[in-house]
Amino acid sequence: MTFSTYEYKERIRKTKESMTQKGIDVLLITDPANINYLSGYDGWSFYVHQMLVVIIDEEQPMWIGREMDANAAKVTTWLYRDNIIPYSDKYIHSDVNHPMDFVANILKEIGQENRNIGVEMENYYFTAKSYEQLKKGLPNASFRDATLLVNWVRLIKSDDEIEYMKKAAVIAEKAMMAGIHMIQEGVRECDVAAKIFYTQITGTKEFGGDYPAIVPLLPSGEKTSTPHLTWTDNRYKDGDAVILELAGCYRRYHSPLARTVQIGTPKDEMRILAEVAVEGINACIEMIRPGIVCEEIEETWRRTIEKSGFVKESRLGYSMGLNYPPDWGEHTVSIRKGDKTILQPNMTFHLIPGLWLDDYGFEVSESIRITEAGCETFANLPRNLTLKELV
Amino acid sequence: MTFSTYEYKERIRKTKESMTQKGIDVLLITDPANINYLSGYDGWSFYVHQMLVVIIDEEQPMWIGREMDANAAKVTTWLYRDNIIPYSDKYIHSDVNHPMDFVANILKEIGQENRNIGVEMENYYFTAKSYEQLKKGLPNASFRDATLLVNWVRLIKSDDEIEYMKKAAVIAEKAMMAGIHMIQEGVRECDVAAKIFYTQITGTKEFGGDYPAIVPLLPSGEKTSTPHLTWTDNRYKDGDAVILELAGCYRRYHSPLARTVQIGTPKDEMRILAEVAVEGINACIEMIRPGIVCEEIEETWRRTIEKSGFVKESRLGYSMGLNYPPDWGEHTVSIRKGDKTILQPNMTFHLIPGLWLDDYGFEVSESIRITEAGCETFANLPRNLTLKELV
Repeated sequence: MTFSTYEYKERIRKTKESMTQKGIDVLLITDPANINYLSGYDGWSFYVHQMLVVIIDEEQPMWIGREMDANAAKVTTWLYRDNIIPYSDKYIHSDVNHPMDFVANILKEIGQENRNIGVEMENYYFTAKSYEQLKKGLPNASFRDATLLVNWVRLIKSDDEIEYMKKAAVIAEKAMMAGIHMIQEGVRECDVAAKIFYTQITGTKEFGGDYPAIVPLLPSGEKTSTPHLTWTDNRYKDGDAVILELAGCYRRYHSPLARTVQIGTPKDEMRILAEVAVEGINACIEMIRPGIVCEEIEETWRRTIEKSGFVKESRLGYSMGLNYPPDWGEHTVSIRKGDKTILQPNMTFHLIPGLWLDDYGFEVSESIRITEAGCETFANLPRNLTLKELV
Repeated sequence: MTFSTYEYKERIRKTKESMTQKGIDVLLITDPANINYLSGYDGWSFYVHQMLVVIIDEEQPMWIGREMDANAAKVTTWLYRDNIIPYSDKYIHSDVNHPMDFVANILKEIGQENRNIGVEMENYYFTAKSYEQLKKGLPNASFRDATLLVNWVRLIKSDDEIEYMKKAAVIAEKAMMAGIHMIQEGVRECDVAAKIFYTQITGTKEFGGDYPAIVPLLPSGEKTSTPHLTWTDNRYKDGDAVILELAGCYRRYHSPLARTVQIGTPKDEMRILAEVAVEGINACIEMIRPGIVCEEIEETWRRTIEKSGFVKESRLGYSMGLNYPPDWGEHTVSIRKGDKTILQPNMTFHLIPGLWLDDYGFEVSESIRITEAGCETFANLPRNLTLKELV
C-alpha cells in the first residue's frame, strides 16, 4: 500500500466532513485519482466504469468494478474483501446493459435508494449516460453535484505526498535534461520523445517512475505557437525552437516541468519573449507565500510582462499532484484573475506562464510547494531559453 | 495531413448518411478519435472540452476548442480557418462558465437551436454536466443519443488505415521482443516498462511511433490474476510469470499484442493453462473468415477450452484501430455470445483470450484483419508461454 491506513482514514474523514456540509449521504466517486486517494486502488481499468462509494454512516468505502479488476482491488486497496463488488462482463460496452444499472441495484439492496446521492457531474469518467441510468434506476434518490468534492480535500498535501512529489521532481529533471541533451539539428522528434519516456519510467537507481497523466508535449518550429502537440518522426532543423512540457511521476504523484530549447541562433523576438517570460516567472516565485490570494500571483505576472508590451489571456497555473490520464491538474484552484483561494503551506501548483503567438511561442514552468515562509520549486534547472549550437 | 482530403470527405459522407438514418441534423462529436477521424485533429488537448460539429447541410465540420489549441487545429486539420472556433480561457475549469454554454451560443448564432442534435452520451469526453448545460442553453433543441455513431463508421478500415496498423504491428513486435528479452530474475519491473516505452516511441528507422492509448500492462507473480495492473520498481523473482499487454501505435492507429513469460520453471497448472489458451486462440484464427457471425468465434473458443474444463466469462476481443487514451478499443463490436455482427473484409479486432484465475493467469492475443478469404494477424510472434531460464 502506498500510504498508511491511518492516512487513508483521515482522507475519508475529511471527505465525510465535506459531504455533511453539502448534505450528501452517499458519494459516488468515478474520478480515478479520487478513487486512488481514498482507497489506494491503482490500475489502468478506468476505461470501463468503476466507482468508489462512500456512505456517510459506513466505516469503509465500497469499490464497484469489472470482475476481472476485482483482484486488482484486492491487491492495491486497504478495503475488506466484502467491500469489493465485481460486476459481470455483460455490462461492458453493451447497448443493453449499463454498469450504472448494476450500481443502482446494489444501492437499492443496501437500502440507500432514498438518500441524497452526490455524483461527479464534471468528470471524464462519469458520462452523461451514467447519470441518466442512475436517475432511472434510483427514482427516489435526490442527486447532488459533488464535482471536485474530493479534489478539494486533495488540495493540501501531507508530508508523505510531498516526498512523492519530490521524487517525481528528481525524475522530471532527469527526463528534461535527457530531452534537452538530445535535441539537435537532424535528430527525429520521436527519438527525443522515446528518450524522455525511457527516463520517466526507469526513474533512478533508488526508485522507479510511474506513467505521467500526460505524455511529453513537444511542439517545435512554428508549432510552438500552440502547447498541446506531441511529436512526429520529422527531423529538427537549424533555427527550430522546441518546447518540452513533461512530468516526472512517482506512484501517481506528479512534478510537471516545461522548458524551451533553441537550435541554432534564436530570432530576436524569441530572445525577447524568453526574457520577458523568465522575468515574469521569477517575479512570481519571489512573491509567492502563504496568506496571499491566488490572483495576486497573476497580478505580479501581468504587471511584470506588460512593461514589455506582452499580454497573456490564459491562466498562469493550477493545483496538481496525484492523477491519472488525461490530466495531471486537479481542476480546483487556478492561478488567474478572480481566484480568491488563500495560499497555505503544502499546497502545490504547476506555475506555467506559456506565451503562444501567431507562429512561435515560449514556455517555462515550475512545480512549486507553498512553504511556511514562501515557496520552493520541486525541480532546480535554469529557466532561460536553452541554446543548442549546431554541431 | 494524415489522409487525403478525399478520404476525410468520404468519412463525412458516411457519417451524414448515418445521421440521416437516425434523424440527426447536428452531430456534436466529443470523442477525440472521432474528431481525429473526421477532421485530422491531433493534440493532447482532450483534457479540456473540445468538439467537432457536423451539420447535415453544411459541407465542412466546425472545430470548437480552447483558444491556445486553435493553432493546433490549423496545423493538423483540413478545415477552413473560418471553421475553427476558439473559446476563451475563462471557460477552463471554472465553476461559473462551462464550455458548453459557449457551444450553445454558437449553435444559436448559426440558427441550429431548433434542430435534432446528436450527442455522444456514453463517452469519456462528454460529461454529465456537459449534457445538462447544453439542454439548458438550447431548450428548443431535441437531443438524440448518438453514442458510437462515428465509431460504427470507423468499423471497416480503408487500405491506408490498414497500412498504418501494419506499421503499428512492426512496432508492437519490436516492443514485445524488447520486453521479453529483458525480463529476468532480479530485473526491476520499471526498467522493462521503460524499455518497452522507448521501443514503442522510437519505432523503426523508417518511421517513428506514436503513444498508444494504453500504457504497457505488466502484472507479474500473483498479480497475473488480474489484467490491468501496470508496474512497480520491484524486482522479478524466480518462478514469476509476467503478462505483457502492449500496443504499437502509428499516427494514432494501434496494433495491440499480449504474451506471457515465465521466469524459471512454470507450475504445472500454468503450463496447462497456457496450452489451453493457445489451442483456443489457434482454433479461432483458423475459423475466422468473412460472412460468419462474431459470436461464432466465441463458440469455437468455448468449445475448444471446455474440453480441458476451462470457462471464460469475459469477452474474447473487440474492434479496434484509431484511438486516444484511455482505450484503444472502439466500443462497437465485441467478440462474445450475442454479438451478431457479420464479419467483413478490413474489419480489425484485438482477439484477446485472457484467463485469470485466483492467483495466476495467462494472456495471449493477436490483432487481426478480416481478409477476403479468412483472417491474418498483424504481428507474427510465437504464442506459447515464453520460458526464460535463470541465468
